[in-house]
Amino acid sequence: MREVFQQELAEVRERLVSIAELVAISIDHATTAFNNSDVSLAETVIADDHRIDEQALNLDELAINILARQQPVARDLRIVVSALRISASLERMGDMSSHIAQLARYRYPDKVIAKGLRTTFAEMGRLDVEIARKLVELLRTQDVAIAEDIRNEDDKVDELHLSVFDKVLGETWKGAAVDTVDATLASRYHERFADHAVSIAKKVQYLATGSWVDPSPSA
Amino acid sequence: MREVFQQELAEVRERLVSIAELVAISIDHATTAFNNSDVSLAETVIADDHRIDEQALNLDELAINILARQQPVARDLRIVVSALRISASLERMGDMSSHIAQLARYRYPDKVIAKGLRTTFAEMGRLDVEIARKLVELLRTQDVAIAEDIRNEDDKVDELHLSVFDKVLGETWKGAAVDTVDATLASRYHERFADHAVSIAKKVQYLATGSWVDPSPSA
Repeated sequence: MREVFQQELAEVRERLVSIAELVAISIDHATTAFNNSDVSLAETVIADDHRIDEQALNLDELAINILARQQPVARDLRIVVSALRISASLERMGDMSSHIAQLARYRYPDKVIAKGLRTTFAEMGRLDVEIARKLVELLRTQDVAIAEDIRNEDDKVDELHLSVFDKVLGETWKGAAVDTVDATLASRYHERFADHAVSIAKKVQYLATGSWVDPSPSA
Repeated sequence: MREVFQQELAEVRERLVSIAELVAISIDHATTAFNNSDVSLAETVIADDHRIDEQALNLDELAINILARQQPVARDLRIVVSALRISASLERMGDMSSHIAQLARYRYPDKVIAKGLRTTFAEMGRLDVEIARKLVELLRTQDVAIAEDIRNEDDKVDELHLSVFDKVLGETWKGAAVDTVDATLASRYHERFADHAVSIAKKVQYLATGSWVDPSPSA
């Protein structure tokens, strides 16, 4: 029974890794589509989001099934409950990628982002992709050093997010209202994407260090 | 054992109701502060958000504790797992209230919202407050008719959300960049608030009707 349970936990972990891999592809394509106004890539991201949703749902069913059959307690129980929460965060990260891709699609053939902000969004996109890749590694290895990396990268995303507001609210901003709307939404989506990653990283960290009570339920 | 378990489920439900009540107060105050530029009310909302976070965290601990001790299966297990998810959504609704209050505080003593959008935001705020109050009733009574009401009100919020974009992207919009940013963010927060309520309503609905697989993990 115990051995079966360990196999099932390994299965849960593998599935989380595989969802995180889809999320990493999704944000990579979304930010590329966004930065290059590539509408067909944007449409791929939007069309593929249901795969992340489905896999998250399947994982949830597996986790609930494990709870029912194996009735884990203590740390094992925490692991299964955390898996449910991690899958919810991954699903939301997929949504953020999809929202970023939608902005690219709405504005096509125009560029989404006004000239003065392109470097900023290129950097935010690069950071989100890096964070997603690190998340795959974190879920695969449970190496808490990676969790720290993710938190540091998130700090950089937050700084860039604030700098977007400084820019669009500054005196030199010449963008039209549509540029202001797009920059505001795009920045928020990039920032939330990284926030969800931090929320997952914290859960992995708490599980690994034995401190089971996550002080911030939604990071 | 069974009786204890039923008492514990009742306790879970009561706590969800009490968190939802805090959320209803929070969105009521946040939208009032936002519409009237009432900075001290805004600060109350922001300062009180930790109470929602704490109660959500305590509920999560209770739910995990019940899973460990009672080892529920089938529908009982679904109820406890749903409680964990509902608490996460309520916690996010509190965050949205707090974000709306923050916009009021940032712009004080200026009004947050440019003249042409005040009626729209007053209506969005009214709907969000109504949705939050209905959510309290839904969690208290498990009356699925209320879940339908919430979905209908959310449709109205979505329409208003789209109308905000029509307005700020229209030719008659004379707002400065700061007005455009605020309208974009405020509209998004109001819309997300209602989305989370729908996500909770769906969970209650599925539990009540026995269809346990929620087809949309994050509404």
